[in-house]
Amino acid sequence: MKLGRALIPGGDGPVARVVALAQNGEQAVDVRRVERLRLERAGVGASAAARIAEAVVPGSMAAAIETGPPFVEAAQQAALDATGDAVVAIEDGTLLAPLDPSSFRDFMAFAQHFETAYRLGGAEPPEVLYELPVSYLANHEAIIGPGAEMPWPSYSRHMDYELELGIVIGKPGTDLTPESAVDHIFGYTILNDFSARDIQLREMGGRLGPSKGKHFASAVGPWIVTADALGDRLEMIARVNGETWSHGYSDSIMWSIPELVAWASAGEPLVPGALLGTGTVGGGCGHELGRQLSPGDVVELEIEGIGVLRNTLGAPGEPAWTPAPKRRAVQEELT
Amino acid sequence: MKLGRALIPGGDGPVARVVALAQNGEQAVDVRRVERLRLERAGVGASAAARIAEAVVPGSMAAAIETGPPFVEAAQQAALDATGDAVVAIEDGTLLAPLDPSSFRDFMAFAQHFETAYRLGGAEPPEVLYELPVSYLANHEAIIGPGAEMPWPSYSRHMDYELELGIVIGKPGTDLTPESAVDHIFGYTILNDFSARDIQLREMGGRLGPSKGKHFASAVGPWIVTADALGDRLEMIARVNGETWSHGYSDSIMWSIPELVAWASAGEPLVPGALLGTGTVGGGCGHELGRQLSPGDVVELEIEGIGVLRNTLGAPGEPAWTPAPKRRAVQEELT
Repeated sequence: MKLGRALIPGGDGPVARVVALAQNGEQAVDVRRVERLRLERAGVGASAAARIAEAVVPGSMAAAIETGPPFVEAAQQAALDATGDAVVAIEDGTLLAPLDPSSFRDFMAFAQHFETAYRLGGAEPPEVLYELPVSYLANHEAIIGPGAEMPWPSYSRHMDYELELGIVIGKPGTDLTPESAVDHIFGYTILNDFSARDIQLREMGGRLGPSKGKHFASAVGPWIVTADALGDRLEMIARVNGETWSHGYSDSIMWSIPELVAWASAGEPLVPGALLGTGTVGGGCGHELGRQLSPGDVVELEIEGIGVLRNTLGAPGEPAWTPAPKRRAVQEELT
Repeated sequence: MKLGRALIPGGDGPVARVVALAQNGEQAVDVRRVERLRLERAGVGASAAARIAEAVVPGSMAAAIETGPPFVEAAQQAALDATGDAVVAIEDGTLLAPLDPSSFRDFMAFAQHFETAYRLGGAEPPEVLYELPVSYLANHEAIIGPGAEMPWPSYSRHMDYELELGIVIGKPGTDLTPESAVDHIFGYTILNDFSARDIQLREMGGRLGPSKGKHFASAVGPWIVTADALGDRLEMIARVNGETWSHGYSDSIMWSIPELVAWASAGEPLVPGALLGTGTVGGGCGHELGRQLSPGDVVELEIEGIGVLRNTLGAPGEPAWTPAPKRRAVQEELT
């Protein structure tokens, strides 16, 4: 099953609604509307049907996923219902990011990616990357969807894309094993972890983050595909202005996806609707290829079975403020 | 004004409510109840008064702060109303973390702290720490409040506290300057950025995060003090089992608080209810002092004008799963 979110007109302006892709693969169906009509047919009064359907199918995908079985059943019914009056016309700008994640953690699980990146910098990767699935928290409050313009932050002159598989958490859990973690995966999406390389490399020298190198925005979409509907070896492609720059396969990952989920849950709560990124597939960014993006570039990420996530890059403006370097107080005292 | 959150009995179990500390400094007052009674006195029907009061004073402090002026006015009225029937009895376990932050970003803005920490490791701090206010995103989904037990993660044998000032964002903004940022600060709280030093040092070798070294939980509280009610030089103290380990002042910070807020907003949205940490005050953790915490230790952080944040440390259990190291694929091919 493929699930997304669409912007639908409402009395107080457009609102986000969860949609299921119909089994014909062409039409998006409003899940809440299908659920409301089903309740009415079962004898529930009209206003109560609307109230219950809103509770079972909220506009937030993270909240919908947290709803669990009643939401999944409603979505399955919707995917079968492409002939009714719940079909949503999908035009440019209609589809939102399918997930409004409660949190967003990004790993670095493809060895080819980090080995190439470190060696381009003249270094071998640190041993810890082979010992632990190392990760950082990225910005869950700056997620953009398919078709949205990716802002180019004013403090950067070197923008890049990163081709990643996004893992969507379905059930709460703490201290899972790789075996038990499998059942906590709701589905998968495409993740473009856009990166401002110049500031990212500077701030990673401080061994924190990265922060400004990543947090301006990340792109997710166009669909979340439930875990049952995807294979283990997915072709992954990145195109810039129609030219293929990156090509790889999901099963070249060094840390398995259940290992990533299990380690994410060690000693802390996994929350339904959380987004985990695998990290960049080998060769899946311009940095590894010695290439940079330019303002206006159209970046398309395609993952087999999920679809194509297309975003156009904006242009940088003038910084509002740039930090002025501080002097080392202790060095001054010594001299 | 001091604001917090308390657990109040409800028909479906305890619920979180926003409380204001009365001007006598002794009683906590239920802000929503004061607002509901005010509306009723103004002629609003009883059920409508309850509905409006719930909308103006939600149980989430982040949502309450996002409400803006109507919430602040209701809280000010509540602080004056310690004699009415809206007083909440504060017992052990009543006060929750005052903030359920939408995000949590931690800086490293006190030079004495990072200079000591780097020099203990035999290195000088990297230049970037003087060039940029470097930060990372911490776990906004694992915040505990005053009195709560701090879990000791199973994968660590070296636990530490960190004495920090927490900055609470009041208004949305992007690309602020230090001058314009001041108006976006709602208030301040005490932040204990508990740290699992052994795994933190390992994963920072991968130049990402830290993640598992920090994300198990952070403690916040007991109150949020609005920005107008605090001075510029706040005494900061950490005690372990009653013994003073750390002592410093907030104005020893290298990057100013408006600079931290401005840089947090560069190229990305600041969200009301976001939490920013200053980083540890100089000498404000056991690592700098060559001391470690033990299971059962009682850690008290005190910041002048805010109060005392007290947490007891739990004991580690057995790990559910530990990652097995991977081998370097490329090295294997070469040998």
